[in-house]
Amino acid sequence: MTEYGARPLFADSHFSHGDNSNHSDSCCGSRGSFPHTYRCPPSNLHFAIHSPTFPVMQPKSPSILECPVGRAVETVGEWWSILILRDAFQGATKFDEFSQSLGIAPNILSRRLAHLTESGMFVRRRYHERPPRYEYVLTEKARDFFPVVVALLAWGNRHLAPKGESIVLANRSDARPFDPIVVDAADMRPITLANAVVVPGPRASRGMRKRLASLKAMNPAVAPAGD
Amino acid sequence: MTEYGARPLFADSHFSHGDNSNHSDSCCGSRGSFPHTYRCPPSNLHFAIHSPTFPVMQPKSPSILECPVGRAVETVGEWWSILILRDAFQGATKFDEFSQSLGIAPNILSRRLAHLTESGMFVRRRYHERPPRYEYVLTEKARDFFPVVVALLAWGNRHLAPKGESIVLANRSDARPFDPIVVDAADMRPITLANAVVVPGPRASRGMRKRLASLKAMNPAVAPAGD
Repeated sequence: MTEYGARPLFADSHFSHGDNSNHSDSCCGSRGSFPHTYRCPPSNLHFAIHSPTFPVMQPKSPSILECPVGRAVETVGEWWSILILRDAFQGATKFDEFSQSLGIAPNILSRRLAHLTESGMFVRRRYHERPPRYEYVLTEKARDFFPVVVALLAWGNRHLAPKGESIVLANRSDARPFDPIVVDAADMRPITLANAVVVPGPRASRGMRKRLASLKAMNPAVAPAGD
Repeated sequence: MTEYGARPLFADSHFSHGDNSNHSDSCCGSRGSFPHTYRCPPSNLHFAIHSPTFPVMQPKSPSILECPVGRAVETVGEWWSILILRDAFQGATKFDEFSQSLGIAPNILSRRLAHLTESGMFVRRRYHERPPRYEYVLTEKARDFFPVVVALLAWGNRHLAPKGESIVLANRSDARPFDPIVVDAADMRPITLANAVVVPGPRASRGMRKRLASLKAMNPAVAPAGD
């Protein structure tokens, strides 16, 4: 995928699932060349939710199409993808390892792995010849996603573990728990809602410039509401 | 929601949408007390995808139930929620502002806002008496989610904007673009796949301890594959 939006839907119809084909679809059938039965009423939402390439929503607005957050959301697809990446960071590479860890339906896992591979997050590597078996290896692009998962983990432990943490991210060298924060690499100061603004980049469309100029917060022309 | 898993599904059936009720559902009808028609075959996946409280997937495995990333994924629900939060960080508070920015179907937006409110990410504030109109104000819990969006934005600009950036996150004081990185607050060193491990926290179940001990990466007992 060299440019956002250029990737055709159902582009993964050629995708060969060496170790997990022919899983039946427990919900709606997909409409590509997957061997599933179509059982749900056609609608854009269904198209979006059940497309094999799994953009959970179809980006429609320029505020999504042009936005790096919107693009990230489209690429990683939906939440299973985050959990698959989490497991991959923790060493999972094989279909059965993801399946066992997540309790995800095989057909869904299969499509999520296909989408992540198409999106350049995994490369498939054959580790067994006969029968052919593949494992999913993280790319550099995917490894660069690790900070997102770290930020999610920190937020989850802070706000969603009222009785204490079950998993702690710690320093390998001394086992000390990490306290992850997001800072600017230039001066190592935290990036906050008070000191951050969004401004047009070199590729901003006229519409995006207009949108950014109209923002009520994170706008250089508008004072921050406080942090 | 004081504890993960304790929140009943459809708990938002009491939720009053002051400014956006009675939108028809363009896909499947929800099964709570929303006035939609049910049109899709029953299945767990549908239940998960179309439930008004929008856990896009139902967490099943302990690796999700106990994991802060899994919990975060459940709370923020799905990708529209990330984009709604992005807009809220940029100053949007009203239904029509989110709707216009995202091009999201009103019934979906309505449910996402309800879910985020139930999850403690927004408080609803009445800003007009007759007719009653509400705006959605970010809570501290939601504002603490800002670093996750910053990390997503940085990744999106790095890997998904091959022709240049449309939106740049910059320092309010001098308009210099930020270079967001995730570091440990204790020593301000980047947290990486090479130096981070996951270890059981005080609330880890026996199953979780077993799972963590078996990991092939990010495991203190296993050397990192390199970074």
